[in-house]
Amino acid sequence: MATNEGRAFTSIRIIGSGLIGTSIGLALAARGVQVEMLDRDSKAQKLAQDLISSEIAADPEVVLFAIPASALAETFEREYVLNPGSKFIDIASVKTKPQVDVSRIKGASTRFLATHPMAGREVGGASSARADLFEGRTWIYCPSFPDGTQVDSDVLEAGLWIAISLGATPISMSASRHDAAVALVSHLPQIVSSLLAAQLKGADSEDLDLAGGGLRDTTRIAASDPELWQEIIASNAQEILPLLINLQNDLATFIQRLGESASVGDLIEAGNQGR
Amino acid sequence: MATNEGRAFTSIRIIGSGLIGTSIGLALAARGVQVEMLDRDSKAQKLAQDLISSEIAADPEVVLFAIPASALAETFEREYVLNPGSKFIDIASVKTKPQVDVSRIKGASTRFLATHPMAGREVGGASSARADLFEGRTWIYCPSFPDGTQVDSDVLEAGLWIAISLGATPISMSASRHDAAVALVSHLPQIVSSLLAAQLKGADSEDLDLAGGGLRDTTRIAASDPELWQEIIASNAQEILPLLINLQNDLATFIQRLGESASVGDLIEAGNQGR
Repeated sequence: MATNEGRAFTSIRIIGSGLIGTSIGLALAARGVQVEMLDRDSKAQKLAQDLISSEIAADPEVVLFAIPASALAETFEREYVLNPGSKFIDIASVKTKPQVDVSRIKGASTRFLATHPMAGREVGGASSARADLFEGRTWIYCPSFPDGTQVDSDVLEAGLWIAISLGATPISMSASRHDAAVALVSHLPQIVSSLLAAQLKGADSEDLDLAGGGLRDTTRIAASDPELWQEIIASNAQEILPLLINLQNDLATFIQRLGESASVGDLIEAGNQGR
Repeated sequence: MATNEGRAFTSIRIIGSGLIGTSIGLALAARGVQVEMLDRDSKAQKLAQDLISSEIAADPEVVLFAIPASALAETFEREYVLNPGSKFIDIASVKTKPQVDVSRIKGASTRFLATHPMAGREVGGASSARADLFEGRTWIYCPSFPDGTQVDSDVLEAGLWIAISLGATPISMSASRHDAAVALVSHLPQIVSSLLAAQLKGADSEDLDLAGGGLRDTTRIAASDPELWQEIIASNAQEILPLLINLQNDLATFIQRLGESASVGDLIEAGNQGR
C-alpha cells in the first residue's frame, strides 16, 4: 500500500477515460492517490475505473480534464461552479483555446493549469492505457495567461507533481508558443502524411508492391484517428494555416519548375537542410 | 574459385561505379564473372575495381549501365557503336526515357534490356556497396518497347540471370507502367517528405524538441541525395506532374475548409484509407 508521503494531493477526478486520462489514472493510483474516472461513455468509464480499482473521494482536490479542447468550456464551467476552490488541469493537444475558454469565467484563470504531455500511442481507449506512458517524455505546462494572470502556486504544484511523479520532464511555455511549435512539428506532419496517403486510394496493389520503406515511413501516422485529428487541427487552425500556405507556395514553385524542366534539386536540398 | 556452370555470360563491363553498379560488380565477381568497372571519375573507378579485384575481359559479353538516365543516351551510343552484338542492360530509376533514347538508334532496341532493381541505401558510392544489396528485392525488367519491339532472348536471359543469381525477384512490366508506379510510391513520397522538411528550416531548436516519432518518420527520406533526386524527378516529370497537381488540389481544399472552420476529418479519413 502506497503512503501519502510526498504527494501534492490525495484525490483526483479525471474526466475523460481515454488513453491519456486512464494512463494518468493508473499511474496516480499506483502512487496512492484516490482516482475517480468519469466519461460521457459509461462503458469506457466503467472499464477505466475497473482497471484502476481505486477508492473514490467525495470531494476530489484536483479535477483533470482528459477530453478534447472543444469539449472543455462546458465541462470546465460545470466543475468550476460545483467547487471553485478545486485545482483544475487539462491535457489537451492545444493550449490557447482552453486558456481562452477558462478566462471567460470570472476568477477561474488562477485555478486552471493548461498542460500537454507529449505522449501518445497509435491505439486509443482505456484498454490501451499504460501507467508508464509518460516516462521520459516532455510535459508542457502554461503557468500564465496571455493577459498576464498567473496560475495559483498550489495549482501549479499539483500539475508539476503529476508530471514529475509520472516520470516526465515539465517544460514551461506560453500557450501561443506551444501551439505554434506543435503546429510545425506535429500537426503539419500529420496533415502532410494524410494528404500523401490519400493519393494512394484506389492504387493498384501491384504498383504498391514496388513501394519501399520511404512510403511506409512517410504515411505511418496517416493511420491516426480522424475524429481526434479533426479536433486537434480545428482547435489550432490559426497556427496551422500559415504553415499550410507556405507549403502550398513551395509546392506550386516545385510544380512550376518541374513543368518548365527547371532544376528542382535546390528544393530537395532545402529538405536536406530542414531535416 | 567459382566455376562457369549455370552462368548466362562470363564477362561484363559495368559503367558507373556508384552504389548500385559496384554492388552488382561485387556480386557477379563472387559468382565467377569477369567484371570491368568504369566511371567518369577515375578515383571511383579505381576504388570499385580494387574492391572487386576481378580479371578483366577484352570484349565483355554484357555492358551494364549503372548511371543516371540523363547520361544514358550518349554512353549507350558510344558502347553500341563499338560492339553492336553485345548485350546491353541498364538499371536507372526510370524506364521510359532509356527506352526512348535507345530506340533512336536504328536496330539497337532488340539488344537493350531496361531494368530497375528496387534496392538502395541512404548512403551512396562504391565504398557503400554490398554484394547482398539485392537479396529479396524486386527487380523490374521491360521485355518490350512501346512500339512492340521485343528484346532478344539472349539479352533477356542475361538480365534475368543477373537478377535471379543476385537473389532478387524479376518482375516483367512495361516502362510506362513502371514509371507511373514509382512516381506514386517512390517519387511523390520523396517530394512530399522534402517539402515538409523544408518547412522546418530556421525552426527554433526548442520547438523541434517537442517533435515525436511522427516528424522523424515523415522526414526521414528528406535526407536523400539532391543531385540523384533532381535527376530521377526530372526524368519522370510526365508521370509525377499529375500526381502533384492532385496533391495541390487536395491541399487547397484542406486549406479552404480549415479557413472556413469546416470539417477536415474526412480528409484525414481519406489518408486512413490510402494507408
